[in-house]
Amino acid sequence: MRGAVMHAPGDVRVEERAEPAIVDSTDAVIRVSAACVCGSDLWFYRGLEEVEWPAPMGHEYVGIVEEVGEDVVSIEPGQFVVGSFWASDNTCEICRSGYQSACVNRVPMGALGAQAEFLRVPLADGTLVATPDLPDEDLVPSLLSASDVLGTGWFGAVAAEAGPGKTVAVVGDGAVGLLAVLAAKQLGAERIIAMSRHESRQRLARQYGATDIVEARGEDGVAEVKELTNGLGAHSVVEAVGTQESMMQAIHSTRPGGHVGFVGVGHGVELSGQELFWSIVHLHGGPAPVRRFLPELIDLIWRREIDPGAVFDLRLSLDQAADGYRAMDQREAVKALLTP
Amino acid sequence: MRGAVMHAPGDVRVEERAEPAIVDSTDAVIRVSAACVCGSDLWFYRGLEEVEWPAPMGHEYVGIVEEVGEDVVSIEPGQFVVGSFWASDNTCEICRSGYQSACVNRVPMGALGAQAEFLRVPLADGTLVATPDLPDEDLVPSLLSASDVLGTGWFGAVAAEAGPGKTVAVVGDGAVGLLAVLAAKQLGAERIIAMSRHESRQRLARQYGATDIVEARGEDGVAEVKELTNGLGAHSVVEAVGTQESMMQAIHSTRPGGHVGFVGVGHGVELSGQELFWSIVHLHGGPAPVRRFLPELIDLIWRREIDPGAVFDLRLSLDQAADGYRAMDQREAVKALLTP
Repeated sequence: MRGAVMHAPGDVRVEERAEPAIVDSTDAVIRVSAACVCGSDLWFYRGLEEVEWPAPMGHEYVGIVEEVGEDVVSIEPGQFVVGSFWASDNTCEICRSGYQSACVNRVPMGALGAQAEFLRVPLADGTLVATPDLPDEDLVPSLLSASDVLGTGWFGAVAAEAGPGKTVAVVGDGAVGLLAVLAAKQLGAERIIAMSRHESRQRLARQYGATDIVEARGEDGVAEVKELTNGLGAHSVVEAVGTQESMMQAIHSTRPGGHVGFVGVGHGVELSGQELFWSIVHLHGGPAPVRRFLPELIDLIWRREIDPGAVFDLRLSLDQAADGYRAMDQREAVKALLTP
Repeated sequence: MRGAVMHAPGDVRVEERAEPAIVDSTDAVIRVSAACVCGSDLWFYRGLEEVEWPAPMGHEYVGIVEEVGEDVVSIEPGQFVVGSFWASDNTCEICRSGYQSACVNRVPMGALGAQAEFLRVPLADGTLVATPDLPDEDLVPSLLSASDVLGTGWFGAVAAEAGPGKTVAVVGDGAVGLLAVLAAKQLGAERIIAMSRHESRQRLARQYGATDIVEARGEDGVAEVKELTNGLGAHSVVEAVGTQESMMQAIHSTRPGGHVGFVGVGHGVELSGQELFWSIVHLHGGPAPVRRFLPELIDLIWRREIDPGAVFDLRLSLDQAADGYRAMDQREAVKALLTP
């Protein structure tokens, strides 16, 4: 089968890979309907994270079940499924508490390479959620987004305790940040401040529910958020970048007692314990337990109440994967969808 | 009047200070019944925090109201009162959300020097809580503890979301850590692991509700907490020290999705954003909003349901304040009570 493989930073090739088969009795193999390039893939593309080359790429996927192992009971061939970027058993104590991304038996889907024609999904019962029926074509991008970026933005908004009566600020206007805006709106936030300096992204943020746009960054951005909030800061701030500047921007934009939900994978971020102490914020984040939210997100998409698929502004065939990486790296595209 | 003044690290003297008077119409002046030495006073005593010398000392106090300003409505002369170590208006948006220690009009009581015969308390209506009547002598230490260490330990346990069904670990066996154990018990925790290597403190921890004692520190301590919790870590961990080692011990002892409540004033603590990301814990802490808890804590003490005053294992006259600092610095005493 064809699949995307990164051979070195900046070097993505679509080439022949061995077709996956059932390995464990709890596996499923799916025919990938759509996959995509993630902001976190760019850390490797930019040489900022080490990996063993060559590396199969991709951890976001939707598809049709081809085959299941003999112990799989809730998923069957022919179903259209969405899965998280972590495979999880969904039965351990950590999963049951809603943290499937830290399942004691978790498997990172990135290691299996979802940017491909077929994908083996471990722990299929715990990882995959089937849609009510085969979806209309136009729903596929939204369902795909639920696999990571929507689920991650949603987790950011939940971790930031976005809700009725709250002012929510979102640092980061990538797909995750934009979908955190959508999530905050769905969770009932009263006011949503999107921090973005790109017109097309601002437009999508407004479409998703942003009531205010702040273009300034760093401490200037913080000052503008404070001006919009009686000098106090937002109740809830989502951090969706992962740099020192964005993390401090998020913490400083939050009022005492407020909540920071951080979902950007921190690179080189160092937090001063003393500064955190005096900020009196709540800080919560990490790899999103997307599986917790999947049934609800699929339902919202199925009923066409949300349109998270609009973050895909570049659609390519799988064979053009390298173009997708390049466009996202250059910030020419928010998010690239790949169709095998 | 007599009051404790620090002239340099290690140099505490009780000397004549000007008797405080009403300055603002929202002030009260109280005759201090008891004050004490705080673990945070030791940062100055050890030369680890800068201050302008000479500095009047003390921020924990109970006493009898002598006089109130003309705008004070809820507190009157003759009442026995307990106040927080931050004066707060208790009416601003931040106070109303329960974060009086970040009140927009807050005043640090430490600057006013509570280790003295009299004390001016700004924002008296918002800061002070009167007891139902004049307390029996034996209740005074417990009421004094509510002013800071009990309120701070309680906040640590609340921030760590201690509650029914939870396993709570407490890092730090000073007065705050011990009272976090008491708080966790009151909040209904199922299992409470006190991390302590001092026999007398272990005994008090058990008296306050600790079910397990872990003597090991650092990563060895983490390993023991994990052994006690199916390899997962505690649901809730209170950090009550403020060093790099104690903070990492707290974070690493917490299961994914669990809560760290940190109330030790961080000194030189640096947290790696990436490590925090992968730990997937909730982190919340800072200067405790003691005022939020005072009515409930006073009620529990008044009904003799809790005995937080047992942390005072050294009772001195105010004139012996220097001995109190020395004993706590040498860890010969958990907490020194000073009577003017």
